[in-house]
Amino acid sequence: MLTIALFGAGRIGRMHAANIAAHPHARLAYVFDVNTQVAQDVASQYGVTAIETVEQALADDKVQAILIATPTDTHVDLIIRAAKAGKAILCEKPIDLDISKVDRCLDEIKDCDVPIQMGFNRRFDPSHNAVERAVKSGEMGQLESLIITSRDPGLPPAEYLQHSGGLFRDMMIHDFDMARYIMKDTPVSISVMGAVLVDKELSRFGDVDTAMAIIQFASGALCHINCSRRAVYGYDQRIEAFGSAGMILSNNQTPTSVTRHTASATAAREPLQDFFITRYQDSYRLQLDAFIAAVIEGKPVSPSFQDGRLALLMANAAQQSLETGQIVKL
Amino acid sequence: MLTIALFGAGRIGRMHAANIAAHPHARLAYVFDVNTQVAQDVASQYGVTAIETVEQALADDKVQAILIATPTDTHVDLIIRAAKAGKAILCEKPIDLDISKVDRCLDEIKDCDVPIQMGFNRRFDPSHNAVERAVKSGEMGQLESLIITSRDPGLPPAEYLQHSGGLFRDMMIHDFDMARYIMKDTPVSISVMGAVLVDKELSRFGDVDTAMAIIQFASGALCHINCSRRAVYGYDQRIEAFGSAGMILSNNQTPTSVTRHTASATAAREPLQDFFITRYQDSYRLQLDAFIAAVIEGKPVSPSFQDGRLALLMANAAQQSLETGQIVKL
Amino acid sequence: MLTIALFGAGRIGRMHAANIAAHPHARLAYVFDVNTQVAQDVASQYGVTAIETVEQALADDKVQAILIATPTDTHVDLIIRAAKAGKAILCEKPIDLDISKVDRCLDEIKDCDVPIQMGFNRRFDPSHNAVERAVKSGEMGQLESLIITSRDPGLPPAEYLQHSGGLFRDMMIHDFDMARYIMKDTPVSISVMGAVLVDKELSRFGDVDTAMAIIQFASGALCHINCSRRAVYGYDQRIEAFGSAGMILSNNQTPTSVTRHTASATAAREPLQDFFITRYQDSYRLQLDAFIAAVIEGKPVSPSFQDGRLALLMANAAQQSLETGQIVKL
Amino acid sequence: MLTIALFGAGRIGRMHAANIAAHPHARLAYVFDVNTQVAQDVASQYGVTAIETVEQALADDKVQAILIATPTDTHVDLIIRAAKAGKAILCEKPIDLDISKVDRCLDEIKDCDVPIQMGFNRRFDPSHNAVERAVKSGEMGQLESLIITSRDPGLPPAEYLQHSGGLFRDMMIHDFDMARYIMKDTPVSISVMGAVLVDKELSRFGDVDTAMAIIQFASGALCHINCSRRAVYGYDQRIEAFGSAGMILSNNQTPTSVTRHTASATAAREPLQDFFITRYQDSYRLQLDAFIAAVIEGKPVSPSFQDGRLALLMANAAQQSLETGQIVKL
Repeated sequence: MLTIALFGAGRIGRMHAANIAAHPHARLAYVFDVNTQVAQDVASQYGVTAIETVEQALADDKVQAILIATPTDTHVDLIIRAAKAGKAILCEKPIDLDISKVDRCLDEIKDCDVPIQMGFNRRFDPSHNAVERAVKSGEMGQLESLIITSRDPGLPPAEYLQHSGGLFRDMMIHDFDMARYIMKDTPVSISVMGAVLVDKELSRFGDVDTAMAIIQFASGALCHINCSRRAVYGYDQRIEAFGSAGMILSNNQTPTSVTRHTASATAAREPLQDFFITRYQDSYRLQLDAFIAAVIEGKPVSPSFQDGRLALLMANAAQQSLETGQIVKL
Repeated sequence: MLTIALFGAGRIGRMHAANIAAHPHARLAYVFDVNTQVAQDVASQYGVTAIETVEQALADDKVQAILIATPTDTHVDLIIRAAKAGKAILCEKPIDLDISKVDRCLDEIKDCDVPIQMGFNRRFDPSHNAVERAVKSGEMGQLESLIITSRDPGLPPAEYLQHSGGLFRDMMIHDFDMARYIMKDTPVSISVMGAVLVDKELSRFGDVDTAMAIIQFASGALCHINCSRRAVYGYDQRIEAFGSAGMILSNNQTPTSVTRHTASATAAREPLQDFFITRYQDSYRLQLDAFIAAVIEGKPVSPSFQDGRLALLMANAAQQSLETGQIVKL
Repeated sequence: MLTIALFGAGRIGRMHAANIAAHPHARLAYVFDVNTQVAQDVASQYGVTAIETVEQALADDKVQAILIATPTDTHVDLIIRAAKAGKAILCEKPIDLDISKVDRCLDEIKDCDVPIQMGFNRRFDPSHNAVERAVKSGEMGQLESLIITSRDPGLPPAEYLQHSGGLFRDMMIHDFDMARYIMKDTPVSISVMGAVLVDKELSRFGDVDTAMAIIQFASGALCHINCSRRAVYGYDQRIEAFGSAGMILSNNQTPTSVTRHTASATAAREPLQDFFITRYQDSYRLQLDAFIAAVIEGKPVSPSFQDGRLALLMANAAQQSLETGQIVKL
Repeated sequence: MLTIALFGAGRIGRMHAANIAAHPHARLAYVFDVNTQVAQDVASQYGVTAIETVEQALADDKVQAILIATPTDTHVDLIIRAAKAGKAILCEKPIDLDISKVDRCLDEIKDCDVPIQMGFNRRFDPSHNAVERAVKSGEMGQLESLIITSRDPGLPPAEYLQHSGGLFRDMMIHDFDMARYIMKDTPVSISVMGAVLVDKELSRFGDVDTAMAIIQFASGALCHINCSRRAVYGYDQRIEAFGSAGMILSNNQTPTSVTRHTASATAAREPLQDFFITRYQDSYRLQLDAFIAAVIEGKPVSPSFQDGRLALLMANAAQQSLETGQIVKL
């Protein structure tokens, strides 16, 4: 049984709270949020204690792990404090938008021997995961090309976007991690093109809403990622791994398995799951499950802090490629 | 909040226990099983009380509902006792294999004004349910033909089969209920053919393992059902509703959305879900959810005792058609 | 090189003319039609001779084969005359609507040693044919169930229907032949239900527009066929063969491989091919190819006259089952 | 009726010969090939005249059009001579591997007012074409992203590859044309990465067998192309057009519509069409059809010489991007 304190009780934090509460080997102990009313509401829903400072949890020896789901700019500080308190950590991505803060964090905690797992939950999606396993097993032969399609159903609020770090650090960072996860190789160069096609407002703060990347890995293998901030047919999340012995696809998912056949179209499925919390509900749950199992059994957690750092480095290189119009070496 | 006692802690009973425990508006109070050790194990897993007689639950005023998941031949007795104790009832299908016992039961409880919901969980499967809604809404026009495919991955043990009531009362009964659920009409005649093609042992006790039925409804609309006790590719559960304005299909489901493309085959999906508990886990959960909501809100439950009785009548007619080689009027 | 005379230059006859003209090993010699202008038009299109009596072709020794695509009630007479003239025959289905005429025909030609192939072209459809080959090869294990869906896009004119012999002899006869083709077994009983759901006019002449059959074969294996005279989404032609080692489906076909993904539906394909001449254009061509090859090489043709006769017997039994409300032994 | 002379009777030339012979509005008049025996064989198959010099056809006033299917390095010379002889021209792609020769050709024929259609047959594929039409009609809203997957089943012989001009000028050139065809916009920059993953031999002559490109168009819209010289599951040819109102896909095609469902996989289709002549047989036929119709009706042909030139410019820029590791402006 792992006793966990939750920091951050927003939309994602609340989903984590429910998953912890339902887990047979975990116990939710505390809920912290800067909005104390929200913390109180979530805590009382699960019959646990709302706290007004993170210290109350960090100081409690019964608390073994911290789940950090607070705003990005607090992650580094909380990781450092939790690590120094000897707690296992599951932290939402990204570590930070600023690589220098990430490196300072790494330096600060280098003597803390605690497990730190980054919240790249998509690694735990059963379908994406099946692709990774098929590739790793050699079933598809030598991996030669990887194509990741990652399109959000709609634009987040401009307010969110303005402080998001931009499409590469906020959105494509998931896909950079996925590329590394499946490739098991080192990216060596990246080329990016982007455009503002969905909402002209984004030009104001230098962001793009549509982007394509190609990345070459040390083996020579290639990866393409395409992102859009809007897909009217739903949350489009596909992976295509192509190797010397075949191709394996993680296809999109619809709410039911129903197809319609009418005078205007046949075999029509419903629009896709329309939000990451619905689409990836299994992967959030399985991510937590893996974290709990690893910490209890004393095994290494994955994806690691280093994985989080490398994804950010790729996002920074992508941003640089976009801004300079140059292919960037990694 | 609905307080529920569970009678029967076998495979299905345990699934119900977990669903009750996880439900935000239900509370599991007691677990009964003839095997007291099993009852004890399940009860302690959820921190509730194991009881050695059903009376302990029936006599407890705090218990508002009974979930009956005991062997079929105990259903009628437990329904009568629970109904007389004023409890709401969710009972696994079938009510009984003997229609005269079912009718006697109906007679015994005719003055008990309690909700009785029968466990035809497939009505709650999101995909099958989407078919029912599309038909009911008129989206497919006038319903003309319905085709239900229902094939188990493999044969249950001979011991089970021998006391199952036969393929029609044990297996196709689900499909009879589904046909009525989608058709919203009265079946008027049924024709059945069957064969022993999977396991010759079934001939010993007069059962079949492969069967096809056609049923005509009052409107003239037709329904075909096909069943097999073995499908090597997994649990094959499909519905096809065909009307004057189009066709809607509830297709099979695979564990992931992955497809493989190799030198021997393309677009290959994984084998289907291989068991009803996996395939229908959502429908078991949603069935319970509907029961709890209806009882709390004082609304009618569905499918009703009468639905259970009519499905058995159809199964009996099917058995008669098989045995006589005649089309049977209903 | 096979020299062929075409009798009948209606819609299907003209398609045959084009196929013969394009075939590397066939030569179209004559075209006959009761409408001499039509015969003239088709003949001149291919630079061949229009004839006003079939005798002109039957008397010409260079003519080796006759393709009969005239109205059904002329088939028996033309088969007898062509057979007695020693010509190989490819005759459109059915032989006749009256089994006594078919039997008399058989008696008349019993001493004529000429190949007679019946135009059950669907046997040559590449997808249906792949099902037959997979079953025959044992790839699907022992065949246990067969399901044939056969729905026309729309009703033919009432005038046509009134003299069609009814749904079973006009439409489901194709599916009876397909069932025998794939099953390679003897049908022993048939049960049928039907209804007038599409066009009330059909009641006037005792026909139905919607029907379902179940058929048992000698091995115990079962077959279901469902037909409708109207499917708004196009020409619905599917076969499902289910055996001890798996299932193989011949699925529907759309004009292109395009799918659409919008806010209202995803993965939507176009409506199906909307007519048998479009849907089965390959099978008409391959049927002719098989006939030409068999005649040239002196090998048996297939499907045979006997296949045509047996399909009619099944249709008659189906009609009897519909009319009597009884399961009929074959 | 259009009278055509065929120059080049290799594999593709012979397919063109068959298509011309079968076309209702075309007449094959002459066949030329440097291998006179091959020319003789093809000519006699269609009952036409084999010629030993192209002059014989160019000098014949009855010849209205020339189909050029000779080796690439002869295209420019033949185009110039045919154009000066006033013949309409359908020329296989590419015009030439050397842009300076292409430009000189353009200069030479600038006063010849003859239709010149380039053999980018994929524009005529019914599925790809349906994508183009849907985009053009606005059905998908504003086009934002385009993804083209283009993988050959296997490597051509090293001898062929060595003189092919490299992957971009030989293979991806089709996709560059397709990108322009669907985008209806001007490409402004291209970035390419490539690798030798299939056959190390290619390194000897500086070619790659695996490549990815991203291209930006003037509107900001993005296009990704991925190519491989080997796909074990068959000829992989897909197009994905993504716009503000939805996505339309041209999916892969299998020889039949059959799916297999066994203990190891479900819904498995056959491997894809394994060769461009099989996969694109309809588009070769429809390309010819469009050429014949346009020339007869005096309408502009498409794709034009200029389309061929622009595709080569894109291929050259791709090659430059690969060699320099830079994004190239167009």
